[in-house]
Amino acid sequence: MVQNKSAIFLKYPTEYPVAGEHLEIQNKELTVDLKDNDVLLRNLYFSLDPYMRGRMRNAKSYVPGFQIGEAMTGYGVAEVKESKNAAFPVGTIVSGFTGWQQYSVIPGASGLRVIPGARESPIPLSAHLGVLGMPIIGQPKAGETIFVSAAAGAVGQLVGQMAKKLGLRVVGSAGSDDKVDYLINELKFDAAFNYKKNGTILENLKRAAPEGIDIYYENVGGETLEAALEMMKDHGRIIACGMISQYNTQQPYGIRNLFHIVSKRITFRGFIVSDFAEECGADFAKDVGSWLVKKEIIYREDIAEGIDASPEAFIGMLKGKNFGKQVVKIADL
Amino acid sequence: MVQNKSAIFLKYPTEYPVAGEHLEIQNKELTVDLKDNDVLLRNLYFSLDPYMRGRMRNAKSYVPGFQIGEAMTGYGVAEVKESKNAAFPVGTIVSGFTGWQQYSVIPGASGLRVIPGARESPIPLSAHLGVLGMPIIGQPKAGETIFVSAAAGAVGQLVGQMAKKLGLRVVGSAGSDDKVDYLINELKFDAAFNYKKNGTILENLKRAAPEGIDIYYENVGGETLEAALEMMKDHGRIIACGMISQYNTQQPYGIRNLFHIVSKRITFRGFIVSDFAEECGADFAKDVGSWLVKKEIIYREDIAEGIDASPEAFIGMLKGKNFGKQVVKIADL
Repeated sequence: MVQNKSAIFLKYPTEYPVAGEHLEIQNKELTVDLKDNDVLLRNLYFSLDPYMRGRMRNAKSYVPGFQIGEAMTGYGVAEVKESKNAAFPVGTIVSGFTGWQQYSVIPGASGLRVIPGARESPIPLSAHLGVLGMPIIGQPKAGETIFVSAAAGAVGQLVGQMAKKLGLRVVGSAGSDDKVDYLINELKFDAAFNYKKNGTILENLKRAAPEGIDIYYENVGGETLEAALEMMKDHGRIIACGMISQYNTQQPYGIRNLFHIVSKRITFRGFIVSDFAEECGADFAKDVGSWLVKKEIIYREDIAEGIDASPEAFIGMLKGKNFGKQVVKIADL
Repeated sequence: MVQNKSAIFLKYPTEYPVAGEHLEIQNKELTVDLKDNDVLLRNLYFSLDPYMRGRMRNAKSYVPGFQIGEAMTGYGVAEVKESKNAAFPVGTIVSGFTGWQQYSVIPGASGLRVIPGARESPIPLSAHLGVLGMPIIGQPKAGETIFVSAAAGAVGQLVGQMAKKLGLRVVGSAGSDDKVDYLINELKFDAAFNYKKNGTILENLKRAAPEGIDIYYENVGGETLEAALEMMKDHGRIIACGMISQYNTQQPYGIRNLFHIVSKRITFRGFIVSDFAEECGADFAKDVGSWLVKKEIIYREDIAEGIDASPEAFIGMLKGKNFGKQVVKIADL
């Protein structure tokens, strides 16, 4: 039996969730009665991601919804604390679906992945929540222009830097001047704009990419998607990783210019990162890890401290208050 | 010099075009002064297609807009009447961009394609405007469900029948009970509905495809697209050939559920038939031509008689009044 603080899902929100109303920290006792192949994890970090808002619904989705009264689920990094599984001895550092909680029992160690050399590596443990698992798709070619929305976020900052490495012209949008400065001065984007200022999003995008865009890396939806459709070139590709502007409203924005998909022969493809888990396994993680250590790519995290901080950190992320990938640190290694 | 009746583009419409206001039949004299490699065509049939509405705009599009004061352009079948091109002797039957007119001078015979054996073939000449040039894309697999909108139209009827040949379950929508009867009783669709009756389009689609849809062949846009997105299965494909419901309005319908593209990992791809001209060349035309002759596929045409009828036939097609592929017959062979 261990004391296990966790973030419990209380109620389906219709717009932005509210801490205390829709999710709440509770201190519960966890019964530890391991069967063959089970492990008990002491959790260290977990990831807060926009897709989680989509699981706070009472509707069919690509993953089962969160269960009312249960801990929120999510991807984390943890240390094996007790084990009845020879592949995961005590002390092993792993990543997997550990949830918003201090401890987790994982039956059969299902879905856990060992992080080799984690204790000695210069790569921070939290990086295993994001930077090492992010593919770039969309057949980018040197000389093309890519537009990335939410470009200072978890996904956007990596996509933009990888696109630079591949020789593309990179344009980003973000929701504050600080983030725009970061994109231009630290990540070396070719252009970036604050979508809340200086006219409509379309006007901003026209100034930043007057030549039009070949690839749009879609994280936000709504008016930004509509502007991107206007500026797409023929045979453009839209890679849809998320549509965060549409998750917390009962009045979703209606996209009125989808006819460009026909006239410009656009391919608009949705994906979920876990679909690419196979493709971006060990080799990909090694490459990106080495770039990270050599500071060839920059990866900014926004770390909330302690499980108690997780509801507000999550809600802040949905509102764009995070600067970089939002993670929660639960415990030191 | 020949007398040449043609349909002249007068003015950019903002909603449905009106005969006499936006396009009008005029009888002009055509100067025939052929240079080397030019041909004069006597036109027999031409095709009326929804995409033409998109060219009646003063805006950048995938093809140049129609020119005010000039004849409408379009694909047709014609007989070579005079020739300075050895590849196209007098009497040859060709297809190409002949326009909405009785005669055309084609400099350098540019873009013309000979129809071999046209005079002896049991395949009607008008079929070369549609049925022989229509690809089906979207990686269809036996056992999958395809939903086709505007299913009794030029594209829809062919896509549906080809999908049946490939072993798919085929569901169609159309705008009248007559068309629905045709889909069910003649084309042997598995299910079909009149989108104007019996509740919303989504309710109709749920009844017709309760299992969900793998492929949506998109011809109409708007509310039908929104319903299809609701009913798509994971990894579904949307093949966008047109969005006719959105061409004649200044208030396009806003699509509010594009987040399904992410959550269901949908691929939404636009195409223009001419992009596939290479892929569906001679072999494809031969296969489909033989199916047509053996009545293994049915291809219904709505033939307007005479160039004078072309403006009203075009406007009727935009409103869904045509039953099958809309063509104009200008002259007998």
